[in-house]
Amino acid sequence: MSLLVVGSMAFDSVKTPYGEREDAIGGSATYFSVSASYFTQVRLVAIVGSDFPQGELDFLADRNVDLAGLERSEGETFRWKGEYGYDLNTAHTLDTQLNVFQDFRPQVPAAFSESEFVFLANIDPELQASVVEQVKSPRLVACDTMNFWIEGKRDELIETFGMVDMVVINEGEVRELSGESNVLKGSRKILEMGPKTLVVKQGEYGALLFQKDSVFSAPGLPLEEIYDPTGAGDTFAGGFMGYISSKGDMSPAALRRAVIFGSVMASFNVESFSYDRLRTLTQSEIEGRYHQFSDLAHFDRL
Amino acid sequence: MSLLVVGSMAFDSVKTPYGEREDAIGGSATYFSVSASYFTQVRLVAIVGSDFPQGELDFLADRNVDLAGLERSEGETFRWKGEYGYDLNTAHTLDTQLNVFQDFRPQVPAAFSESEFVFLANIDPELQASVVEQVKSPRLVACDTMNFWIEGKRDELIETFGMVDMVVINEGEVRELSGESNVLKGSRKILEMGPKTLVVKQGEYGALLFQKDSVFSAPGLPLEEIYDPTGAGDTFAGGFMGYISSKGDMSPAALRRAVIFGSVMASFNVESFSYDRLRTLTQSEIEGRYHQFSDLAHFDRL
Repeated sequence: MSLLVVGSMAFDSVKTPYGEREDAIGGSATYFSVSASYFTQVRLVAIVGSDFPQGELDFLADRNVDLAGLERSEGETFRWKGEYGYDLNTAHTLDTQLNVFQDFRPQVPAAFSESEFVFLANIDPELQASVVEQVKSPRLVACDTMNFWIEGKRDELIETFGMVDMVVINEGEVRELSGESNVLKGSRKILEMGPKTLVVKQGEYGALLFQKDSVFSAPGLPLEEIYDPTGAGDTFAGGFMGYISSKGDMSPAALRRAVIFGSVMASFNVESFSYDRLRTLTQSEIEGRYHQFSDLAHFDRL
Repeated sequence: MSLLVVGSMAFDSVKTPYGEREDAIGGSATYFSVSASYFTQVRLVAIVGSDFPQGELDFLADRNVDLAGLERSEGETFRWKGEYGYDLNTAHTLDTQLNVFQDFRPQVPAAFSESEFVFLANIDPELQASVVEQVKSPRLVACDTMNFWIEGKRDELIETFGMVDMVVINEGEVRELSGESNVLKGSRKILEMGPKTLVVKQGEYGALLFQKDSVFSAPGLPLEEIYDPTGAGDTFAGGFMGYISSKGDMSPAALRRAVIFGSVMASFNVESFSYDRLRTLTQSEIEGRYHQFSDLAHFDRL
């Protein structure tokens, strides 16, 4: 099956209580692609500047990420600088330089226009909508966002949510967008905007999967070493969408397994800066951690 | 099997974003007893003043709570006044009047001294230790505490933890007592203090059960109506210990089921002020909600 992602590629400078890293490779589409590449081929639509290392693009291509939709522009790549305190759930942005990303107008190559699965990573909701219009009859379109767009382009965002099948956002974003402090009530409001499925990321506490008449709660795996949560959400989305695309199965049971695979990938990712840990993963490590999640969450039915 | 609880009985004045209640019946031992009474007979050791309503004691007695260890003192019952914001995980104490509770020196009646299961609710750790010394060869002693004792009687608390089999505290208390921001590392430190089992309550996110080589994560049930979280932790402990006592089974699988029963009881309790919702529960409602937890958390093994 074919999986398309549209999002950012960036250099991240990150400081956490456990260390810091200057100009590490980051960006929502990058994390997503590397994570999803463990499950399926990925088609990437994004923009980088001339300073983006060729070696990194080669790494992506080697991982079966199709770069035909990657725009290489004169100028510098998007840069983000942020810091985390001991509460690793919240990033404090210190600096953002959009650079070439400012003029990004995603063009879906003709060869990608029949992609069956589409992930709209966190970019301007109007650009997300333009991507939906460029894809012919996809089976599933999922969409992320962030507080910046909820505050600045609320109407456009709600319009985009009306065009997608699934929304994948975090708990704070559910509260902010819905105006409901109660996550269950807030989630219902977001489902009323159009998507049939909502995934609510809860950081270290796991994730919730809402559909009209059902809720699934995936646990967070308690980890001893959490070095850097940057990209955890996109890595989650990559594992989640990668698994769904690889199976072509969107049944409730398959979506639950997909949430666990997303959680597995995110749990690896936070164990290192950038996506270093995702560079060398093996299928057996991924399956081993899925088993860990099974053991973690299992209890007998009555 | 016999289950003994020692703790407070109180009047609570509580304000939440959803309403307020003056002088509602509260106290750790009260919540615990009512909750556990759905599973087993409970033996209560506590103190009340002459203002505590006889009707409430009759209610407890009717629910199979043995009041032979209840001290009725001249003076007023313990009073607590608190408030919650939209973050219902954190209570802000506005006023505490210890009243007769100040001089509480728990006396375990001879008839209770061979209790097999013991829960030391949140009271002075020196008093908790005195209770352990009054009970002959219990099968399981579990213990709660709060930030007040972690700050004020740290050494005594650690000594008490060295005398018990199990500790049931919340995530913030794990961090504060262990000095570790990482909950997994903090939990290991607490297990090194003596208890073989640690239950970490995570409020709306559920609970973790730690033993030497295993971790279990119980989900939090997303609820639309959370009126008052007061007593949720004690209600959880009541369902948890009540189930264990009723079965006499302390296997890892039984402890996991016990965590779910604890979560079931707590999920009902937060749906009303005081323990109003626990007054009229039925076994079939309890089992129905256990099934809901099963459906909530289930995903296929690989």
